Amino acid sequence: MCSEYQILPSYVICKHFSHSVGDLFIFLIVSWVFLVKKGYQDTDTSLQSSIVTKVKGVTFTNTSELGERLWDVVDYVIPPQGENVFFVVTNLIVTPNQRQETCAESESIPDALCYTDSDCPSGEPVVAGNGVRTGRCLRVGNTRRGTCEIFAWCPVETKSRPAKPLLGKAEDFTVYIKNFIRFPKFNFSKTNVLDTKDRDFLKSCHFGPKNPYCPIFRLGSVVSWTGSNFQEIALQGGVIGIQIEWDCDLDKASSECNPHYSFSRLDNKFSENSISSGYNFRFAKYYRDGAGVEFRTLVKAYGIRFDVMVNGKAGKFNIIPTIINIGSGLALLGAGAFFCDLVLIYLIKKSHFYRDKKYEEVRSVMLPPCSLRGPLAGPLDRSPPPGPRNFALVGW
Amino acid sequence: MCSEYQILPSYVICKHFSHSVGDLFIFLIVSWVFLVKKGYQDTDTSLQSSIVTKVKGVTFTNTSELGERLWDVVDYVIPPQGENVFFVVTNLIVTPNQRQETCAESESIPDALCYTDSDCPSGEPVVAGNGVRTGRCLRVGNTRRGTCEIFAWCPVETKSRPAKPLLGKAEDFTVYIKNFIRFPKFNFSKTNVLDTKDRDFLKSCHFGPKNPYCPIFRLGSVVSWTGSNFQEIALQGGVIGIQIEWDCDLDKASSECNPHYSFSRLDNKFSENSISSGYNFRFAKYYRDGAGVEFRTLVKAYGIRFDVMVNGKAGKFNIIPTIINIGSGLALLGAGAFFCDLVLIYLIKKSHFYRDKKYEEVRSVMLPPCSLRGPLAGPLDRSPPPGPRNFALVGW
Amino acid sequence: MCSEYQILPSYVICKHFSHSVGDLFIFLIVSWVFLVKKGYQDTDTSLQSSIVTKVKGVTFTNTSELGERLWDVVDYVIPPQGENVFFVVTNLIVTPNQRQETCAESESIPDALCYTDSDCPSGEPVVAGNGVRTGRCLRVGNTRRGTCEIFAWCPVETKSRPAKPLLGKAEDFTVYIKNFIRFPKFNFSKTNVLDTKDRDFLKSCHFGPKNPYCPIFRLGSVVSWTGSNFQEIALQGGVIGIQIEWDCDLDKASSECNPHYSFSRLDNKFSENSISSGYNFRFAKYYRDGAGVEFRTLVKAYGIRFDVMVNGKAGKFNIIPTIINIGSGLALLGAGAFFCDLVLIYLIKKSHFYRDKKYEEVRSVMLPPCSLRGPLAGPLDRSPPPGPRNFALVGW
Repeated sequence: MCSEYQILPSYVICKHFSHSVGDLFIFLIVSWVFLVKKGYQDTDTSLQSSIVTKVKGVTFTNTSELGERLWDVVDYVIPPQGENVFFVVTNLIVTPNQRQETCAESESIPDALCYTDSDCPSGEPVVAGNGVRTGRCLRVGNTRRGTCEIFAWCPVETKSRPAKPLLGKAEDFTVYIKNFIRFPKFNFSKTNVLDTKDRDFLKSCHFGPKNPYCPIFRLGSVVSWTGSNFQEIALQGGVIGIQIEWDCDLDKASSECNPHYSFSRLDNKFSENSISSGYNFRFAKYYRDGAGVEFRTLVKAYGIRFDVMVNGKAGKFNIIPTIINIGSGLALLGAGAFFCDLVLIYLIKKSHFYRDKKYEEVRSVMLPPCSLRGPLAGPLDRSPPPGPRNFALVGW
Repeated sequence: MCSEYQILPSYVICKHFSHSVGDLFIFLIVSWVFLVKKGYQDTDTSLQSSIVTKVKGVTFTNTSELGERLWDVVDYVIPPQGENVFFVVTNLIVTPNQRQETCAESESIPDALCYTDSDCPSGEPVVAGNGVRTGRCLRVGNTRRGTCEIFAWCPVETKSRPAKPLLGKAEDFTVYIKNFIRFPKFNFSKTNVLDTKDRDFLKSCHFGPKNPYCPIFRLGSVVSWTGSNFQEIALQGGVIGIQIEWDCDLDKASSECNPHYSFSRLDNKFSENSISSGYNFRFAKYYRDGAGVEFRTLVKAYGIRFDVMVNGKAGKFNIIPTIINIGSGLALLGAGAFFCDLVLIYLIKKSHFYRDKKYEEVRSVMLPPCSLRGPLAGPLDRSPPPGPRNFALVGW
Repeated sequence: MCSEYQILPSYVICKHFSHSVGDLFIFLIVSWVFLVKKGYQDTDTSLQSSIVTKVKGVTFTNTSELGERLWDVVDYVIPPQGENVFFVVTNLIVTPNQRQETCAESESIPDALCYTDSDCPSGEPVVAGNGVRTGRCLRVGNTRRGTCEIFAWCPVETKSRPAKPLLGKAEDFTVYIKNFIRFPKFNFSKTNVLDTKDRDFLKSCHFGPKNPYCPIFRLGSVVSWTGSNFQEIALQGGVIGIQIEWDCDLDKASSECNPHYSFSRLDNKFSENSISSGYNFRFAKYYRDGAGVEFRTLVKAYGIRFDVMVNGKAGKFNIIPTIINIGSGLALLGAGAFFCDLVLIYLIKKSHFYRDKKYEEVRSVMLPPCSLRGPLAGPLDRSPPPGPRNFALVGW
């Protein structure tokens, strides 16, 4: 008996699904992927990029230590070359006139504490300290505890970080970021600067939604766009990332290929009290006195490091990826019906019947090739059917 | 009646296409993609690379300002470390003996122009200028217009760019670019330098088609290979990119894995008169006089920045990607016949008939399980055989 | 006659393979690929990363040339900023008090050798030398051969590399590598430092299998992990790569996303006697004497350059790639049976027969619509129509 009633539901659903709803659905997905992912385009991700940065701004400080001093770009930007990574000093600890001689180690270094000279073995460096022990323990006045005498750049740095950033006005400095990109595969190049001969444009403009082609950024704004407070980051330093993203569809006009900027804080701002926050480093300026003896000014600089990162990709119509992707898409399409079948066979309750049906079908359809030849219905029983070959081909 | 005549054309074409021409065609495409894209290889794109650069050359200048002076590598290469980005000074504006004091701001800065002292509010920095206003307006002689007095590094830089590059002879300097690469996945490493003990080889050779393993480049040649003029770029500065590309098939001999060099200009050379062209930066050398007062020599350096960029990938036979790619290729193959079918159904003129036929088939075949039982053999007469059509669809 | 006997072997194998073994096998492979390659995840490879490095350690040297001298971080780390690339000086050739004047060129430069003044054309730079010829040949005493007099930074560097590294104790210096990463797509950020308020943790810990979140590395250990000898590399310099790899499955807990460190030597250590090994560069400190004349101390620094490289990717469940990858996997599945068929058709010895069978089948099956008209209606009764079922499977 043919259990039509039972077969039809799953069977018809699957067929209908495959032929109309399913195929259409998958066809839409595949087409959507093809269009959204631009499967018809050849892409170039090996972006060549060059960054030139130039900071502008001066500020004046008047401290008891340094006296009246003007800070210009050459003073506070390190290194000076204007590459993609640059550092703006915002806070300083200056230790002037250091010379190679002996002095007491800083009290803030645990390993340098001593009670007697025997606590200071001669010739041994102080762990995480500034010099090598001479063998003496220096005690001020009548105190029992002192610090080891060391041979070092003396006097050692003892001051602590100012409570207020020295160059807090760096907030108003500006940086001009010139970015030139080139996609070698398509020989396409562009810059993030409006190519104008109007020199006043770049002298007066500031970056903003209305001026995407004026890459002059106020440092304070860049910091605030990352969600940070400038005076806070100026105090103990930090790292700011400036991403420039070029995502270009070269099938469109060149003017549609625009840079997109994003700003993020790249140091661990969430652990402000931890030892791992902030950004600072020490450097020195070396001098020689009249006698030719070297001395130096040690500077511990806190500040903001800006990392400008560029990435991008370009796509352009090309027949090879188009063919390959259409092919892949079609292969995917083919999977749709199979998926339906799979679901029906394995998941629908009547599946056992359906499966039986399937195999029975196979068996019975396989017979004809021979059975067609006259009275061969008998042998057919035993003969492997050709139909299944189809089966074998299709694969399930 | 069986309308074989009408069915046959598209039908047979499709079958033939699928079985012979089409399959062969797609098989060739897939095979070609497989071989060209090296689908049988595992690839490593996480190249580890290190660059060491070393510039050589000296030049002599005799200017009224600097007197007789010899320039060696330590003088003109910034920074000195020999990393992948290095800058060669080719032109200079030197402002010696700057001290922290008051002087007149440069006349070239619009914001500093003044008629009376009230134009110079004390304590306010000059926009895009060199210092902070003191409150006085300095006028030379009887002129009505002057510039604000500022507290700054004085005297300020006033000279303009020399019309002829000071270090124009940098054209003959050479740079030795040592590149070591390693593909961690295959533990394969190589260098771009001929590994010879013949010290004279590297002392005398120059890079060229005949010497691909002598990575010593004449700066003038590198610039000319980018299509630029050295004297022009030396005058106002620029950025040159040197790409080193390693595309290694590790199934072949190690000696087949060679670096390929390419050179390109990475600043906007097309806008020579625009404010955005060229490359320069300012740096200073700091000194102390006998009284311990700091003074500095400000240098505005124009020159060429070279960015050496390395990228590469390596491939080696591996069974996993081979299986996966063969599988994908076969899946693609399967799409061929479907594509043929699609074309026939939707594009060929007789398509309406063909389609009708198809759906009719479906309809009639769907019911048959039961409907065949009895006198329904007749209708079947007119229906094209379902099996083979499937064949065409399935594609083999 | 139907040659059943001959058909059976390959035929049945293929069917069985396709339906049971083969499908299962391919299904397992595809599933495995899907799970191992995390096909259900959306991935982000555009890692934003910032590196801050800080070296600690002092050492004391006592040489005839430099006298007693203490070296601290500011002296031996170049550049001082603490970026991802830093260089630690381990050996030095110092040439103090160079001034712009005339002196004899170094004898080690072949191009400077001379017998008479005519060998020294005035104004010509010495190839690979230190200055410009003045036109005189300087011979010491009665020797026939001398070197050209040059205008240069005099005296020129003549000493050779010390046989023992001056700062061999740099082995015990430590470097603290702070790495902050962010995956913008998932807005996930993490650092390689244990976020603790326990300041003592970072003051005492060292990196090791037990302390993966204490990124403080002893330089000697880093070098030994690359398989190199510290004293050897300290002598002539070298480049060490420190890779930090983040491979994060964001479907798991954030604490499962850990950095993995690896260390490798990035200069050509295999050619120690070749000219291309080692790493060194020259830099100078510029001074002015009382009369304002510039002089400098030239330093040829040998040392170890550390390149910290970060890469990583993150994956998180997303429905789109899941659907796409399941689809692709199913398409792949479909290829399995075809592959079996292909093998049977083209590779098995009886293939010619099998192929004949196939085409015959096609031919015979194609005709039936008409040929069935006759006494064959009967057998059909029992057979479910083969077409449509296949249809559902194949999918159109």
